[in-house]
Amino acid sequence: MSLTVDLNADMGESFGPWVMGRDADLLRIITSANIACGAHAGDPDVMAETMALAVENGVGIGAHPGFPDLQGFGRRRMHLPHKTLANFVRFQLGAAQAMARAASGRVRHLKLHGALGNMTSEDAELARVCYDAALSVDPDLIIMVLTATAQEEATRALGCAWAGEIFADRAYNDDATLVDRSRPGAVIHDAGVAGPRVAAMVKAGAIITGSGKEIPAAIDTICLHGDTPEAVDIARSVRAALEAEGVALAQFEGRTA
Amino acid sequence: MSLTVDLNADMGESFGPWVMGRDADLLRIITSANIACGAHAGDPDVMAETMALAVENGVGIGAHPGFPDLQGFGRRRMHLPHKTLANFVRFQLGAAQAMARAASGRVRHLKLHGALGNMTSEDAELARVCYDAALSVDPDLIIMVLTATAQEEATRALGCAWAGEIFADRAYNDDATLVDRSRPGAVIHDAGVAGPRVAAMVKAGAIITGSGKEIPAAIDTICLHGDTPEAVDIARSVRAALEAEGVALAQFEGRTA
Amino acid sequence: MSLTVDLNADMGESFGPWVMGRDADLLRIITSANIACGAHAGDPDVMAETMALAVENGVGIGAHPGFPDLQGFGRRRMHLPHKTLANFVRFQLGAAQAMARAASGRVRHLKLHGALGNMTSEDAELARVCYDAALSVDPDLIIMVLTATAQEEATRALGCAWAGEIFADRAYNDDATLVDRSRPGAVIHDAGVAGPRVAAMVKAGAIITGSGKEIPAAIDTICLHGDTPEAVDIARSVRAALEAEGVALAQFEGRTA
Amino acid sequence: MSLTVDLNADMGESFGPWVMGRDADLLRIITSANIACGAHAGDPDVMAETMALAVENGVGIGAHPGFPDLQGFGRRRMHLPHKTLANFVRFQLGAAQAMARAASGRVRHLKLHGALGNMTSEDAELARVCYDAALSVDPDLIIMVLTATAQEEATRALGCAWAGEIFADRAYNDDATLVDRSRPGAVIHDAGVAGPRVAAMVKAGAIITGSGKEIPAAIDTICLHGDTPEAVDIARSVRAALEAEGVALAQFEGRTA
Repeated sequence: MSLTVDLNADMGESFGPWVMGRDADLLRIITSANIACGAHAGDPDVMAETMALAVENGVGIGAHPGFPDLQGFGRRRMHLPHKTLANFVRFQLGAAQAMARAASGRVRHLKLHGALGNMTSEDAELARVCYDAALSVDPDLIIMVLTATAQEEATRALGCAWAGEIFADRAYNDDATLVDRSRPGAVIHDAGVAGPRVAAMVKAGAIITGSGKEIPAAIDTICLHGDTPEAVDIARSVRAALEAEGVALAQFEGRTA
Repeated sequence: MSLTVDLNADMGESFGPWVMGRDADLLRIITSANIACGAHAGDPDVMAETMALAVENGVGIGAHPGFPDLQGFGRRRMHLPHKTLANFVRFQLGAAQAMARAASGRVRHLKLHGALGNMTSEDAELARVCYDAALSVDPDLIIMVLTATAQEEATRALGCAWAGEIFADRAYNDDATLVDRSRPGAVIHDAGVAGPRVAAMVKAGAIITGSGKEIPAAIDTICLHGDTPEAVDIARSVRAALEAEGVALAQFEGRTA
Repeated sequence: MSLTVDLNADMGESFGPWVMGRDADLLRIITSANIACGAHAGDPDVMAETMALAVENGVGIGAHPGFPDLQGFGRRRMHLPHKTLANFVRFQLGAAQAMARAASGRVRHLKLHGALGNMTSEDAELARVCYDAALSVDPDLIIMVLTATAQEEATRALGCAWAGEIFADRAYNDDATLVDRSRPGAVIHDAGVAGPRVAAMVKAGAIITGSGKEIPAAIDTICLHGDTPEAVDIARSVRAALEAEGVALAQFEGRTA
Repeated sequence: MSLTVDLNADMGESFGPWVMGRDADLLRIITSANIACGAHAGDPDVMAETMALAVENGVGIGAHPGFPDLQGFGRRRMHLPHKTLANFVRFQLGAAQAMARAASGRVRHLKLHGALGNMTSEDAELARVCYDAALSVDPDLIIMVLTATAQEEATRALGCAWAGEIFADRAYNDDATLVDRSRPGAVIHDAGVAGPRVAAMVKAGAIITGSGKEIPAAIDTICLHGDTPEAVDIARSVRAALEAEGVALAQFEGRTA
C-alpha cells in the first residue's frame, strides 16, 4: 500500500497595493491552498487572482477565514460572541466560494487562520462553533485541523470530514504541542533537515518530538510557509524528500473517523 | 388574465450597534428583499438576522451589493477599475449566498445599491460588468433593473433573466427619468396618492409621467422605502391599492426578453 | 464651602448615516462631553458636528478613544501589544484635538471607552500605558477615571491631573465595584431615585453602596447616559437634584493628589 | 547668492504586516517627508515609527492625507461632499500632529496624496477646501503644491505659506503638465539623466520641458520616489547632482507670494 500526503500553504495574503508571500512559486509545490477571505488579509482582487492561479495549477482550494482585523493580520485575539464568530465564518466562506466559482473552481476545505486558529486549537467548543457554521453553508466541506488538538476533537464530535495537519518547520514537545518559538530549535530553518523529518513522520503515522518520542496522529497534510525565499526552498525540500521516500503527493480526501 | 407584480424594499442596512429601517414591518408587506452585503451597510450578524426573517416571511432574497464605503453608505461615486468592481460584486454576492444558505434560503435576485445603482443606470457597459460578474457566480440569478435604463439594456445584451422596477414614491419625467429630488412633487409623501398611482401604472404596463404621458415599460416590481413610519404606511397603501385593483402580489420570475 | 461637581456623557457616537444618542438634548444638561474619535464610533463629520455643539453649549470637550472595532462598538476585548495600544490612543486623541481646534475649542480631558475602559479599570499597567501615551501628546490633559479602580491608581502613579467618576444609574457593591447588570437593581431606571442618590454621594464624598455602606472616594464627575428618552429624563433629574441640594455644576479642574 | 532646494518623498506607506517603501534609505537623502496618515496607507504604529525616524534624521515632517480607501491606496477618485473632505483632512492632520509630538517632532507641512492630489491640481476650489481645512487646525502650516497647478492657485488665494514641487523622474509637456505615463520617455528611469536635469531646472528657476522650453516656476522642493532600489539610486543621484552644482539642500521655509 502506498502512502499519500497533501502539502498545504496559506496564501492570497496580499492586500491592495501590498504584496505578501510567494504564491506563484508555492502553487507549483503544494496540493492545497488556504486562501485568505478579505478579513485578516486578501481583498476581492487578490482572491480572484489567487483562485485562478490555484485552479491553473490543479491545487485544491480552501477558505482561510480569520478575525476581522486587517492591521493585526488576524493575529490578535478578539473576543467575539459565538453567534458573531459563526456569522463571520459563514460570510468569509461564502465570499471565497463565489470567487472560486467565478474562477471555475470550488472551495473544498476550510482552515482557520492566526489567532482564531490558535484559540480554536485550545477550545473545542469554539472550534465547534466555527466548523458548524461553515458546514451550515456547505455540509461537504473538509475541515483542516491541527492534528491532535481541540480542533480535531471538534470535527470528531460534529462527524464531519476532516484532515489532520502538521507543520514542516516547527519542533514538537512530548505532549504534541509546538515548542515555543522563543526556545532554540523551535523553528526549523534548514531545508536539509525539514524534508527528511517530515518524511519520517508521515511514514511513522506519528508526530516525532524533539526527544524522539512518537505520538500516533492523523497526518493528512503538511503545512508549509512561503513568505521568504528560504521558505520556498524548505517547501521544495519537503516535497523532494517525500517523493524520494515514495510518498505520493495528492489532495486529501478527508476522513470521518 | 390576471396581473401580478412584486413589491421590493432595501433592507439589512443596520450595522453593528446602529439600527436602520423597519425591516420586520416591511417584510410583512413586500415579496422581495434587497439585502445589504456588508460593504455599504450590513454586517454578518445583520445579514444572518435579515435572511432568517425573510425566509420566515416567505420573501424572496436578493443580494444588494454596493460600493465599499460604509461612512458614505455607498452613496458616493467611486471610480474603480472594472475588474475590481466585478470582484466586489462577486465577493458580496457570495457572502450573501452563504448567509442565505445558513438560513435555509437562497439568493434569487441581485440589485445594485446607491451610487453604483445610479452609475449603472447611466452606463450600460458598467452595468454589464457588474451583472456579468454576478452571473459568473450564479447564472440563474435574476437581475433587478431600473426599468427603461442602461441597466435594462445591459441585461438584454447579456440574455439573462431580469425584472424591471419602478419607484412607488418618485415622480417621472416625460423621458422616463426620475424628477429631480429638488423639484416640487418629486417625492410622493401621501400614501393615498402613491397606491392608486402605482396600481394605474401596473395596469397600464407603462410609466405614467407627471404630465400624464404613458411610456410602455416592463414593470415587474415596485420599489418601496421603509426607513420612516410614513414610508411603512405608503408601503401598506401601495399593497392595498394593488390588491383592490385585483393585481396579485408575488415574487417575479424573471423575463428574458 | 460650596460643593461642585461635573456631569459627563459619552457622545458623538453616530457613524455615517446611522444616528445614535440624543447629543443635542444632553449637551444642555452636562458640563463635559466624551466624544468618540472614529475608531469604535464617530467619523470626521460626526466629530466636527459634535465638537461644534459642545463649544456652542460651553461644555468641556474630552477625547473618548476606544478599540478599532466599529462593528463591535469597541465593546469586545482585543489583545493589542502595549505599543500598538499607545499609538492608537495618540492617534485618536490627535484627531480629536484637530477637530476641536477647527471648532474653536480644545480637548481638555480623556476617557477610555467600552472594553478598553473595562480592561484598564482592572489592570493599572494597561491604564498607565494608555494614559502615558495621551500625556505624551498633551501633558496638561485631565484623565477621567472610574474612581477607586486601577485607572485611578495609574493616574496617581503618573502624577498627572485626573478626575474621578461615578455612575448615576448603576448600583455599587460593598467593595466599590458595580453590581453586575444581571442582578436586580443593578441599573437604576427611575429618575426620581437616581437624582437624590447621586446628590447624597456627592455630599458624602463617598460611594454609597446598596447596603448603605459609605466608601470615601474622589467624586469629581457623574456619568450620565443618553441613548434613550428615559436616559435624558434621568440626566435632567440628576442635575435638578444636585442643584436643589446646593451642589454647583461646573467642569472639573483635575486633581493631582 | 546661493540656491537652496528641498528634497521630499512620500513615506510611512506600510500597513500592519505589509511593508512598502525604503523609508530608512530615503530619510538619509531627503530633507522633507510626506507621511501617510492612516487613511490610504499607514497605521498608528507605522506613523509612530516613521515620525521617530524622520526626527532622528532631522527631516521635516509633513502630513500626507489621502482618500479613506485603503485597498485602492487613495488612488481611486472618490466624490465626497466638500464638508466631508475638509473634515477628513483635519482628522488626518490632527492624527499626524499627535504622532509627531509624541516623537518630539512637529508637522510643518502638508501635501495631498494620490487621487486627492490629482483632483486638487485640476480644481482650485477643491484645493482651497482642503487647504483651508488644514489651516483651520494649524494656520502656520506650509502647503506643498504641485507648482503651476490649481493647487498653487489655491494657496495664493488663501494667502498662506506654500512650497512649489516638481518631479525628479517625470517629463513635462510645454504647458507645464506631466507627460502621460503611457508615452515613451514620460518616466525617467536613468539616475544619470535625472540628476543633471533637476539641477538645471533648479538653477533656471523653471520647468524645462521635453522640447527644451523653459517655464518659469516656483521650485522649492523636488519629489523623489522610493519604492524600488532603482528609485533610491535616482534619489541619491539627484542629491549628488544638486550638490555638485552648488545647490544647497535644506527644508523649504514656505513662500507667501
